[in-house]
Amino acid sequence: MVGAGQLARMTQQSAIALGIELRVLANTPDESAARVIVDTRLGDYRDLSDLRDFAKGCDAITFDHEHVPTEHIRALTAGGVQVHPGADALVHAQDKAVMRERLTAIGAPCPAWARVPDVERAVAFAAEHGWPMVLKAVRGGYDGRGVWICRTEAEVAEAFDAGIPLMAEAFVPFERELAVLVARSPHDQGVSYPVVETVQQDGICVEVLAPAPGLDPEEAAQAQRLALNIAHELGVTGLLAVEMFQTAGGLLVNELAMRPHNSGHWTIEGALTSQFEQHLRAVLDLPLGSPTMTAPVVVMVNLLGGDDPDVFKRYEHVMAHDPGVKVHFYGKQVRPGRKIGHVTAVGDDLDEVRARARHAAVHLTTGEYV
Amino acid sequence: MVGAGQLARMTQQSAIALGIELRVLANTPDESAARVIVDTRLGDYRDLSDLRDFAKGCDAITFDHEHVPTEHIRALTAGGVQVHPGADALVHAQDKAVMRERLTAIGAPCPAWARVPDVERAVAFAAEHGWPMVLKAVRGGYDGRGVWICRTEAEVAEAFDAGIPLMAEAFVPFERELAVLVARSPHDQGVSYPVVETVQQDGICVEVLAPAPGLDPEEAAQAQRLALNIAHELGVTGLLAVEMFQTAGGLLVNELAMRPHNSGHWTIEGALTSQFEQHLRAVLDLPLGSPTMTAPVVVMVNLLGGDDPDVFKRYEHVMAHDPGVKVHFYGKQVRPGRKIGHVTAVGDDLDEVRARARHAAVHLTTGEYV
Repeated sequence: MVGAGQLARMTQQSAIALGIELRVLANTPDESAARVIVDTRLGDYRDLSDLRDFAKGCDAITFDHEHVPTEHIRALTAGGVQVHPGADALVHAQDKAVMRERLTAIGAPCPAWARVPDVERAVAFAAEHGWPMVLKAVRGGYDGRGVWICRTEAEVAEAFDAGIPLMAEAFVPFERELAVLVARSPHDQGVSYPVVETVQQDGICVEVLAPAPGLDPEEAAQAQRLALNIAHELGVTGLLAVEMFQTAGGLLVNELAMRPHNSGHWTIEGALTSQFEQHLRAVLDLPLGSPTMTAPVVVMVNLLGGDDPDVFKRYEHVMAHDPGVKVHFYGKQVRPGRKIGHVTAVGDDLDEVRARARHAAVHLTTGEYV
Repeated sequence: MVGAGQLARMTQQSAIALGIELRVLANTPDESAARVIVDTRLGDYRDLSDLRDFAKGCDAITFDHEHVPTEHIRALTAGGVQVHPGADALVHAQDKAVMRERLTAIGAPCPAWARVPDVERAVAFAAEHGWPMVLKAVRGGYDGRGVWICRTEAEVAEAFDAGIPLMAEAFVPFERELAVLVARSPHDQGVSYPVVETVQQDGICVEVLAPAPGLDPEEAAQAQRLALNIAHELGVTGLLAVEMFQTAGGLLVNELAMRPHNSGHWTIEGALTSQFEQHLRAVLDLPLGSPTMTAPVVVMVNLLGGDDPDVFKRYEHVMAHDPGVKVHFYGKQVRPGRKIGHVTAVGDDLDEVRARARHAAVHLTTGEYV
């Protein structure tokens, strides 16, 4: 696995059970996954020779992030390395304009969009589709970075000041955000987890409710078919997370990710097969595991670092207060706003389970009681 | 954790989630846990200076086996190291005669027993309690080794030929074997998992059924109280597994283990808190986790190595045949009879869940279909 963040770290938990020897490519030995994986190699994922050295002896290469240049992936593949997802699929998670073009071509519902090379054409897009408009960095954005919601021409001009390629999207007055996590293996087996609701704050996922409360079963099945179809059409191998807007007019695809995803952390306790085990099975072309939920309701809340780096007393409180809540720490130094872990609660009643998960997360990060 | 077998390996999965940095003391770098734990130290657990070096910088020391000499544990404790379980408790898991004396003193029901220094006194014991009689090595037995069921004086004499201290126990015509896993923390919080049935073959645990099918709730509660009381009276910190015989006349204590135990592997998927997480919480004096089951029925079957070391095709079959069964491999070379992993199935119906777990285990180890 190229990249040694928390996704690789949690993948290691599944690799241990499956008897799979996981190697990671880390930038530094103190990264989240490097702390828990014996076969950690140091190197630069932007350097082809580092990638080639890393790949020697591996059955398959996969990723904890989407930043490996596609030309390097093509070079590895040409050299006989199994890489999942491959370059032709991964480019859709790297380049939002390529993704929109392809989704439009296969008939997947998307917000209105256009490549906008300059302020003038962005303003023309807004004139057609209305204000506010959304500008996005074509490459490199995540967790709300690289996204501008512009209400005026001046704000559009400000976004262009960054000097990076942008695309425009119509602002979608959505009811809520949903996510569908699917897996697809090289021999084209596919599986979909239940549709979840994701709650975002400032562009960062803070809470995931599984399954999405009150979602019409027909609309849920439609969302799952849509995500499986995207995985098939784009040739994704491994996991694909499809973030969607639920609107009065139906579902619209927002973003794609091709790796374990924050919207799937709930599966560690909440599904028979965690997304991390599923990703390993998919990229190794093993039969996929059951996505069946282990309880009627699962809620995951992210832990975003607060001002106080010492969480120990709060950790003790949370364990004592609720012996059933599951705490996950990523082995990272606490910094304000940084994702340092998550908590998961399972149960029968959404309000009760959500309150438990929130209590744990809010207390761990702020010391407050909710 | 002193020792780097599969128990330490599975403890690492929980340590990763909890953000606990687990260090192990291994004999060799290719042991089961050493393969998945970055902070692996090599050394001899029988050597006090190795243990002292190992303990430097650790918040607490615990064990993957019960073979560390108690005098070394006392020396570590005298030097200010937190060791759980402590020497005064652990001796009861090391020395079966000390265990029987103490259990008898606290009124815990045991088979009739006696120290038997020679053949003559062993035969006198059999004359009083009947044939067959059970001889056990006072120290060092496990998985059926160090146990002799003797039907004649000649067989008694043969057992004594080993030249090790033995004790005698009355042969118990039990209905089945049960096990109760409890945790106790230094501040005396205790928790009990549901009582399970263990199925043994040739002295090796092969199958665990959780909860023990058809067990009378009053007898189950009695078994849990008995195990919690033993943990309290013996001052156990960490996990305690109490193996019991269910007989027409009630429960009798068979063996004690003070560490994660084969009879608790089902808790990884089958309980809100796995035994490995629970052991970490207990030895670090953190609040204990909920032992509540995640499903009505859980069955664990051990994988004992067969003749064919290449399990890969069988591994693929098992995953394809049953996407919900969970496979655990310990990263060990396959050798006939060696515990190389286990499988777990969860569900609602005992017969169905047991059949699924058995299918997976039998196929993985023999290639046969059952």
